[in-house]
Amino acid sequence: MSKDKYNNKQLYLGVDGGGSKCRAVLYSEQDGVIGDAISGPANALRGVAQAQKHIVEATDAALAQAGLPAEYKSNLIAGIGLAGLNLEACMNEMKLWASPFKNTFYTTDLHIACIGAHGGEDGAVMIIGTGSSALVSENNELFELGGHGFPVGDAGSGAWLGFKSIELTLRVMEGLVKTSDFIDEIVSIYKINKAVDLAQLVSGYSPTDFGKLAPVVVKHALQKDAHALAIMQAGAQYLSQLAKKLLDGRDVKLSLIGGLSPLVEKYLDADVVAKLTPAKQPPEIGAVFFAQQQIKAL
Amino acid sequence: MSKDKYNNKQLYLGVDGGGSKCRAVLYSEQDGVIGDAISGPANALRGVAQAQKHIVEATDAALAQAGLPAEYKSNLIAGIGLAGLNLEACMNEMKLWASPFKNTFYTTDLHIACIGAHGGEDGAVMIIGTGSSALVSENNELFELGGHGFPVGDAGSGAWLGFKSIELTLRVMEGLVKTSDFIDEIVSIYKINKAVDLAQLVSGYSPTDFGKLAPVVVKHALQKDAHALAIMQAGAQYLSQLAKKLLDGRDVKLSLIGGLSPLVEKYLDADVVAKLTPAKQPPEIGAVFFAQQQIKAL
Repeated sequence: MSKDKYNNKQLYLGVDGGGSKCRAVLYSEQDGVIGDAISGPANALRGVAQAQKHIVEATDAALAQAGLPAEYKSNLIAGIGLAGLNLEACMNEMKLWASPFKNTFYTTDLHIACIGAHGGEDGAVMIIGTGSSALVSENNELFELGGHGFPVGDAGSGAWLGFKSIELTLRVMEGLVKTSDFIDEIVSIYKINKAVDLAQLVSGYSPTDFGKLAPVVVKHALQKDAHALAIMQAGAQYLSQLAKKLLDGRDVKLSLIGGLSPLVEKYLDADVVAKLTPAKQPPEIGAVFFAQQQIKAL
Repeated sequence: MSKDKYNNKQLYLGVDGGGSKCRAVLYSEQDGVIGDAISGPANALRGVAQAQKHIVEATDAALAQAGLPAEYKSNLIAGIGLAGLNLEACMNEMKLWASPFKNTFYTTDLHIACIGAHGGEDGAVMIIGTGSSALVSENNELFELGGHGFPVGDAGSGAWLGFKSIELTLRVMEGLVKTSDFIDEIVSIYKINKAVDLAQLVSGYSPTDFGKLAPVVVKHALQKDAHALAIMQAGAQYLSQLAKKLLDGRDVKLSLIGGLSPLVEKYLDADVVAKLTPAKQPPEIGAVFFAQQQIKAL
């Protein structure tokens, strides 16, 4: 694509930043997505400098895809949704950034996910990935639940499922609880015989490390392994509580987002499942919509 | 006391080191404890250098109490029981220390607690303090359970009780679960209205920080608050499992040790309570006995 093609046409940048990666899309109202790139982590809570670095990296890569130079950043209207910006201190620090964009609008990763899922209309989202959290947008008001960070929060998430699996595996290894195919598989993954050695190994685990065990829990829950099923059901019970509180008294639909959501859905309460609707657009497109909304409101 | 009094008499040093403090006692076979001092943390897992520094500090203070100079260390036969020495790598690193004592024998904090509790005879101990763990000594064989570190292990401990309280408080603050006097007190302690702010506050909490909430759980469990009671009972259920596994097929008595043990005892299963016996001596005296055993066996 030539640089000239976009002369005199406003391009938008949509950014979705979380604990594992940052995604940036370049968007033209005429042509839709013309660039799409991924860089490293951009959770503002783990440092705004790192988040800013990865936002710029992903943007430059998306611009290159569209055949545009890095200097083109100064023409972009950017909508940036990041994990961690629900914390006031993080948001304030982020807003101090002398960003390279023409206009820069910040919000949370949850908010852009919600805008994307419901095309900017009222609606709710629940993210079930490495972490878990939920948001409802109604009459221009936002109400957020969960997302308090592992291990004290984020129940039902990938990190939490992995954590509960290790907790139980340690008890099985010490003979306090009977084993199962599920626990046998966890033990065989680590090739460790003594509980004390497994405990030592996981003592430095991040949420992402624990989250890598989530597919093992899901697989064995589907095979009706009693231990795996109990962990899945306990996680889903919390997520159902969260969803019900979110939807309580509101006439909106709920979209599930995040890698684990298709796997957890079948364990949610029936009245929650009845409210589900597929997301219309991914969070990074929600970030573009957010930028468009904000610039119009100026 | 004069320096001369101990001329030609062997003095022993007993050291009990854990995550919050290090205790050293100076012991004469004729006069018993002649010096007793406390210094900072000496958990070998958090660094053997720090542990060694605090062992020396506590020893120097105990010697000063007995009217003896710091150089007297080179005459002492030392028994040192530290948290973290159950890990082989930690023990190996600790044994590389050019210690200032005449003889130095290392073991775990659990082992010296067990020796002290049963006067060196066969028996079992369960420690319920900031952490939780258990050990049985029978026919010169040791068998250890639990103590895998918070948050993946150490259920029923002070840190775990505090952690479960915060986890539940966050759910109450978001309206997922009904409150109670217990949760109201937790909220009033923090003077925080929003779950997200409480989650942020505790995100850097150590086991010791969480453990400070344990007395609040205990108090409300005694008042039959349903939430506090459920947490206490879940912790005690794990500790009962641990105790039963420890005592399984063994004809020994069990001593409970640690700040929380008198408070948790009433929630343990009756068949565990039937096996309880008070500890004869504290862990630091167990460390002295350990030094005496080891030097005789040389």
